[in-house]
Amino acid sequence: MEIALGDLARILGGETRGDASTRLSDALPLSEAGKGDLTYLDNIKNQKNLAGCMAAAVVAPIGVEGLEIPAIIVADPLRAFIAAVRHFKPDPGPAYPKFVDPRASIHPTAVIGQNVTIAPFVVVGADCRIGNGCVLHPGVVLGEGSVLGNDCVIHPHAVMYPRTKVGNRALVHAHAVLGADGFGFKLVDGRQQKVPHLGCVELGDDVEIGAGSAVDRATFGRTRIGDGTKIDNLVQVGHNCKIGPHNLIVSQTGIAGSCKTGAYVVIAGQVGIADHITLGDNAQVGAQSGVMRDVPSGQVVLGSPGRPERDAKRILVSMERLPEILKEFRRLRGAGEKSSGGGE
Amino acid sequence: MEIALGDLARILGGETRGDASTRLSDALPLSEAGKGDLTYLDNIKNQKNLAGCMAAAVVAPIGVEGLEIPAIIVADPLRAFIAAVRHFKPDPGPAYPKFVDPRASIHPTAVIGQNVTIAPFVVVGADCRIGNGCVLHPGVVLGEGSVLGNDCVIHPHAVMYPRTKVGNRALVHAHAVLGADGFGFKLVDGRQQKVPHLGCVELGDDVEIGAGSAVDRATFGRTRIGDGTKIDNLVQVGHNCKIGPHNLIVSQTGIAGSCKTGAYVVIAGQVGIADHITLGDNAQVGAQSGVMRDVPSGQVVLGSPGRPERDAKRILVSMERLPEILKEFRRLRGAGEKSSGGGE
Amino acid sequence: MEIALGDLARILGGETRGDASTRLSDALPLSEAGKGDLTYLDNIKNQKNLAGCMAAAVVAPIGVEGLEIPAIIVADPLRAFIAAVRHFKPDPGPAYPKFVDPRASIHPTAVIGQNVTIAPFVVVGADCRIGNGCVLHPGVVLGEGSVLGNDCVIHPHAVMYPRTKVGNRALVHAHAVLGADGFGFKLVDGRQQKVPHLGCVELGDDVEIGAGSAVDRATFGRTRIGDGTKIDNLVQVGHNCKIGPHNLIVSQTGIAGSCKTGAYVVIAGQVGIADHITLGDNAQVGAQSGVMRDVPSGQVVLGSPGRPERDAKRILVSMERLPEILKEFRRLRGAGEKSSGGGE
Repeated sequence: MEIALGDLARILGGETRGDASTRLSDALPLSEAGKGDLTYLDNIKNQKNLAGCMAAAVVAPIGVEGLEIPAIIVADPLRAFIAAVRHFKPDPGPAYPKFVDPRASIHPTAVIGQNVTIAPFVVVGADCRIGNGCVLHPGVVLGEGSVLGNDCVIHPHAVMYPRTKVGNRALVHAHAVLGADGFGFKLVDGRQQKVPHLGCVELGDDVEIGAGSAVDRATFGRTRIGDGTKIDNLVQVGHNCKIGPHNLIVSQTGIAGSCKTGAYVVIAGQVGIADHITLGDNAQVGAQSGVMRDVPSGQVVLGSPGRPERDAKRILVSMERLPEILKEFRRLRGAGEKSSGGGE
Repeated sequence: MEIALGDLARILGGETRGDASTRLSDALPLSEAGKGDLTYLDNIKNQKNLAGCMAAAVVAPIGVEGLEIPAIIVADPLRAFIAAVRHFKPDPGPAYPKFVDPRASIHPTAVIGQNVTIAPFVVVGADCRIGNGCVLHPGVVLGEGSVLGNDCVIHPHAVMYPRTKVGNRALVHAHAVLGADGFGFKLVDGRQQKVPHLGCVELGDDVEIGAGSAVDRATFGRTRIGDGTKIDNLVQVGHNCKIGPHNLIVSQTGIAGSCKTGAYVVIAGQVGIADHITLGDNAQVGAQSGVMRDVPSGQVVLGSPGRPERDAKRILVSMERLPEILKEFRRLRGAGEKSSGGGE
Repeated sequence: MEIALGDLARILGGETRGDASTRLSDALPLSEAGKGDLTYLDNIKNQKNLAGCMAAAVVAPIGVEGLEIPAIIVADPLRAFIAAVRHFKPDPGPAYPKFVDPRASIHPTAVIGQNVTIAPFVVVGADCRIGNGCVLHPGVVLGEGSVLGNDCVIHPHAVMYPRTKVGNRALVHAHAVLGADGFGFKLVDGRQQKVPHLGCVELGDDVEIGAGSAVDRATFGRTRIGDGTKIDNLVQVGHNCKIGPHNLIVSQTGIAGSCKTGAYVVIAGQVGIADHITLGDNAQVGAQSGVMRDVPSGQVVLGSPGRPERDAKRILVSMERLPEILKEFRRLRGAGEKSSGGGE
């Protein structure tokens, strides 16, 4: 797929600068681009990063000056670079032909839509419904009565317990688990007695669930993930949670049972949220925070225990100065006690 | 499964209040119940939550007054409500017939009990023993020499490395991993040399392991989880740990190697416990704590680094006040220095 | 496999002390050894731990005195004990015969080396290459174009997304996921628009990846794990990271996107590292720390937010004393205000 700079510029709709015959064989980011590679500059501010770059050419934004290597000048370098990457590594097309592999185990009562791909060793339980255009990678397990909308992609070994409902265009990564029992026990006569979990998990449209993440089923009703919400890897969402639409929940965050979030909430990595907490629209939680109180709309929370950003930062700054201040305090106290004749 | 209120009250052994002919079509918690649904009130204290509820009727405790919708009055509303849920959504029965699916891979030397269900794509290694009444969901892997007691339910893709031993009535959720190597290395000649892990993992009776959790095998002996202990999702238990009976270990907690816990220990979410730590009977650890010292029986530990509850709370309160106190301190110091003619 | 002490001493190359005819039936660590078992003492300093031990004999280091049970004296007790364990529990040999199970799904374009074991229900995609001596346990999925070096062991259900590259002698534990999409979104017109992830994951030689850990694919280039680096269970490595050689990364740590580490970096459990951070050679990060700034070579970082060890410890000690100091401060302030006639 080698190509001349000028030809690629034409494909990308950009303007050639420098030697149009420069041969290009791959497209890689600055930190990895070597001889013969095309790279990209996302922003003129970062132009100094090009120093010492071994790339043969660069996709750069309109207005850039003083480039030392040939370039393709475009309005949106990231978008053009993505197109270039796809030129060098064309999408191989579907990994599996659009059909149901005979080695999958499909219950006869399951209803499968048009144009569905089911890989080997998938298990589809009784009464499942799978929408049009879905792709189920190897080892996916759909418990009985589960429903997938249209155009879902379910990666290898993702597991849905019975009666999980998934909207359209869901992207579920490998080893995600939807619908395992919530963690609820009562100590009765010296034994942890299990609270039955009779509810289910429901995902809206355009939801993404990361690798190895777990969303527990509700006690009675639904644990719900709203439309357009994206969940990273190894996240835990507890039973009965109602996660709102268009949230971003970063890796290794844990949300305990019965929490609610509004729209456009952003929760950074390794956050813990106690049970029955509500986060308002546009709330944001910093990495490693521990949220133990409701968060109003638009508020930013940091720290463990979590506090509004301004309070958390004041405490942080105070702590930073604490050792010095304590020293000073002891000096002054000593001086005061001396001047007043005191001792220890 | 629609039913009249009076008929359902009879099934639940409760007393009808209001219109006995009210039609009910589903049973859902307060936050989700709509027209035609039955809901429940666990406690008279929470009666105000019924305001604005769209439900057609409510299961409520003896002694309740002033309900605005028809009701079924019982001594234990939660238990009656669970029965109602099961009326509307009867247990579909076993997902798989009680037999060994021919698409499972069972080593000829494995010994399988009575009344065992083995789903497609399960792998049972050489010399495994599986007790009566066990259910192995799709994709479960039992390494050679593993043993399951009676009535275990092992959810999809749970993996047991060789020689794992599981007691009776274990519930192992999807993607749990029992018996992977402990994380032990020695730096020798510039390389991390692996410490061999020749031991195994042993679960007592009535143990529950959450989705995606991992319990590592011992270096030589056994990593053990005691009878009746319940472990949530995405928990890590290190090599050589001896977890006591009837513990609760909440999601995303990590317990390093060679720890011991007594009976009835409760460890909240995202806790980290350093290696070789002992937690006494009834010890409790708050969420996100980091335990670096042994915890005596009955002690509650909070914070990172973890401290006894009282100390941790005093420090927390002090930190909360710190910014204000520092300001005051600076003011006083300034005043003091001025009065004594000092400057900076 | 019962054996007399004297005979075992000969096999281990050690010196018998006490009754050479002592019968031994198993080898277990001190905390578990009972009647008839051999145990070991790693270091003379720990000799007191032998008090009350029920073991029949002990492997002990040269120079030990005053043992109360028969012993095998060697220079390296741990190494000798490992050999003893292997005597009592000999390696059962390969779990699967060296062949490709007909129930595996191997794409006809895949190239399989010599002496390769492929268990049932493995899926090998188009254009994969598998080196000599590899073992693929049940349910392993290799996306199209993936490459394994020689002598890799891939445990059950580990998943490699397309174009993952793995060096020689990799050990990948159950449920590890290599190459899922990085977590990158842009909010466009009220929706989280996915940043395409066109790169891949590359592991060097002698890498170990723990159970349930996830390494995300790069946006364009490679997410790389260096030679000899060992990663524990449930660890998250974000897109575009370049992890150096011979690192140790302990359980439940999360490394955000585009981080770099040097050689011999050690990251303890439950650490979080913000995106675009660089850790120099031999840097060390304490458990539960949150790293938000670059760490120079050899520096030890503790706490959240992470600080150089000395600063972190000074702050920790100050916090410990804070409640007492505040009390003292209030007392002094009260006294000062009284003596100057002030009030509140």
